[in-house]
Amino acid sequence: MQDGWLRRALEVKRDGGALDDATWTRIIDGYVDGSVEEACVAALAMAVAIRGMDLAEIAALTEAMVRSGDVLAYPRLSERGVRVVDKHSSGGVGDTVSLVAVPLAAACGVPVAKLSGRALGHTGGTLDKLEAIPGVRTDLSPAAFVAQVEGIGCAIAAQSARLVPADRQLYALRDRTGTVPSTGLIASSIVSKKIAGGADAIVFDVKAGRGAFMRTVEDALALSETLVRLAARFGRRASALVSDMEEPLGAAVGTGIEAVEARDFLRGDDRDPRLAEAIFAVVHEMLRVGGVADEEIAPRTLDALGSGAAYERFVQLVEAQGGSRTTVDELSVDGRRTSALAGRSGFVTAIDAVAIGEQARELVAAGGPFAGIRITARVGTPVRAGEVLAECIGDGVPAATIAAAFTVGDAAPAARPLVAKMVRDAQAAVPSNGLRS
Amino acid sequence: MQDGWLRRALEVKRDGGALDDATWTRIIDGYVDGSVEEACVAALAMAVAIRGMDLAEIAALTEAMVRSGDVLAYPRLSERGVRVVDKHSSGGVGDTVSLVAVPLAAACGVPVAKLSGRALGHTGGTLDKLEAIPGVRTDLSPAAFVAQVEGIGCAIAAQSARLVPADRQLYALRDRTGTVPSTGLIASSIVSKKIAGGADAIVFDVKAGRGAFMRTVEDALALSETLVRLAARFGRRASALVSDMEEPLGAAVGTGIEAVEARDFLRGDDRDPRLAEAIFAVVHEMLRVGGVADEEIAPRTLDALGSGAAYERFVQLVEAQGGSRTTVDELSVDGRRTSALAGRSGFVTAIDAVAIGEQARELVAAGGPFAGIRITARVGTPVRAGEVLAECIGDGVPAATIAAAFTVGDAAPAARPLVAKMVRDAQAAVPSNGLRS
Repeated sequence: MQDGWLRRALEVKRDGGALDDATWTRIIDGYVDGSVEEACVAALAMAVAIRGMDLAEIAALTEAMVRSGDVLAYPRLSERGVRVVDKHSSGGVGDTVSLVAVPLAAACGVPVAKLSGRALGHTGGTLDKLEAIPGVRTDLSPAAFVAQVEGIGCAIAAQSARLVPADRQLYALRDRTGTVPSTGLIASSIVSKKIAGGADAIVFDVKAGRGAFMRTVEDALALSETLVRLAARFGRRASALVSDMEEPLGAAVGTGIEAVEARDFLRGDDRDPRLAEAIFAVVHEMLRVGGVADEEIAPRTLDALGSGAAYERFVQLVEAQGGSRTTVDELSVDGRRTSALAGRSGFVTAIDAVAIGEQARELVAAGGPFAGIRITARVGTPVRAGEVLAECIGDGVPAATIAAAFTVGDAAPAARPLVAKMVRDAQAAVPSNGLRS
Repeated sequence: MQDGWLRRALEVKRDGGALDDATWTRIIDGYVDGSVEEACVAALAMAVAIRGMDLAEIAALTEAMVRSGDVLAYPRLSERGVRVVDKHSSGGVGDTVSLVAVPLAAACGVPVAKLSGRALGHTGGTLDKLEAIPGVRTDLSPAAFVAQVEGIGCAIAAQSARLVPADRQLYALRDRTGTVPSTGLIASSIVSKKIAGGADAIVFDVKAGRGAFMRTVEDALALSETLVRLAARFGRRASALVSDMEEPLGAAVGTGIEAVEARDFLRGDDRDPRLAEAIFAVVHEMLRVGGVADEEIAPRTLDALGSGAAYERFVQLVEAQGGSRTTVDELSVDGRRTSALAGRSGFVTAIDAVAIGEQARELVAAGGPFAGIRITARVGTPVRAGEVLAECIGDGVPAATIAAAFTVGDAAPAARPLVAKMVRDAQAAVPSNGLRS
């Protein structure tokens, strides 16, 4: 009967009730130290996946997870009252935003401590894209990560195993037990990592659509609201965008070829309009939650891009993480090029982002990081039979297979906004390096 | 991804769907052989506890559990076309029915192979009551159990570890994860053990009320219907009674003092009318599912009691399991007697069966198996202040504490039927020693 409290907690969640803070802490502490058996945590995760959690419970779980490991701080910035920002994407295809937004916000005076992830399923991972640049490392020690953010105002690194170990353990369990899709568990997983990374302010880019984990704008909006309210409970300023993932975001899909696209965007060589819209939306929110006055946000962003300051900041980041200016300047796509052609005339009405993401992964597996797919005909583009829809760079996926991911119909599809919804914290929360206020 | 099928199965149950037979088999086989991790089974149990299972799923789970271990058979009876009956109680206080019904049904010509359990929580266990008789053992080998049923027509024994090992493992997990209350899981646990014990026909006595695991007649009826329909899918004749457990069933509550009550009932020394009603209801159903013609049921039962044949059969059972006629004849309650007295005049309107069950357990723990409680004023009895409500036999629980379990009010309470509902299989299912037809 030593675990009577635990069984009672499971019964409460089974019946749709709520657990108090102390119980969430006891469960997570016990899970990490081995005194709470994994089977009970699995049953709890299933009860939560079906019954849900209220915001107080999500906050208690988040706090318990943060306390399971180290918490980063940026004393040289916080003593000057400067807010450190992080940016999170829920995962998409052709989502090159982070590689551009991180140095761009830093060049605007808002330091960014970006803890990032690997590719998952059909979606790309920022770490993989950055590591495609020769020499670049993302396994920074916590001290090196903090020093880089304090020094040049930006870093993009893998999360250290010492941050939020409970989340690592819980996520792996959820993955095995069919309990990944739960707004409360997803939100606590995301926010705990951002709090542990020391962010004072956070922008969440929540993707919605067939290429995203959230299929509908409604689901993505519910998660966005939970993320912003949860961050606010910890005194973090936050905004969340619900952005479209019915089709790939940028033109480039792969790893290194997305780094090329980011470099071209920052250097001003080529700026895909759709990617630009996403980048500006995210960077504007990063500046806003970072404390930049509304009227300065757009001018500063344009100036940092136009002056080359953002590009210079990107080069500094690459150099700080083991690469060089030359490697950045010389990045280019690499592989035999073939063309995916339209089989009929009409309008591109859909591009299957999951298929494109998986095909790009196969091309990279066969041909290295600078293989992949470049989309030339976005949704809404009029095409004639035989015109190019996309370029295939590398071998292993026939161009005809890539073409099959495109749907060409008779009528132009209705326009979809790139950013469907925006959720901002109502009040300017006080920045804090402590936990919940 | 080796366990992709398992995660998908968990997702289906999470979302309220149903799993096919092969998946249930794969899960149970894997759980027993260690290839399916316990955390996944725990998550599944929670999903089932919340979402439920349809009858086809319950049957598939039941069959997979039966196949996890040995299955008993009674060839000397089945070759003569004789049905072996088992009887199950969902657990109550003062429930002495099995000790009487098993030899009584056997004396009526219906062999009974009774696999029984231990005390659980506040409820008593038939094994504990039987073992209170000096010398009696209940840990019969499967071969000895079968031989005794084939020989003298009745045996009461603990379930061998080789029968339904999956249920043992799953029940222990459910107990730790708050997933015990689930009609499907309860029904599959009960029926799998009866099928593995080789029963051709089964009577389920499902208790309802404050002293039972099922609090309401509605819940007990739902379980009863599932039990009977499930047994029918395996070709087993079955009946289920929903019987009252708002107050203790018999007058005696304890272990050995319930054996004394059973002996007295069989020998004709003392027959509590309420206990008699329960025993006749159960034995009549045992005879019915055992194949006795309707018009013979009541006369045979009365004759077996009146002639002493039922008592002789009880003595034979005790002797076969290590006791003697002398020990049965000399059984008596043992301990200092004090009286629990009414504090006011009126009618007994309620007796808290959970409190009485726990107090009796304490008295037995302190004073041995022949300590306990004998109730003298049942619900509905008019009492005067200072009159005896119950006798306390033994030390360790003050009589006043026992009196506090009785509520005395001004008005006589409305009568409650002892058997609230009866569920019988619609068609005479074909007896079968195979699994599902």
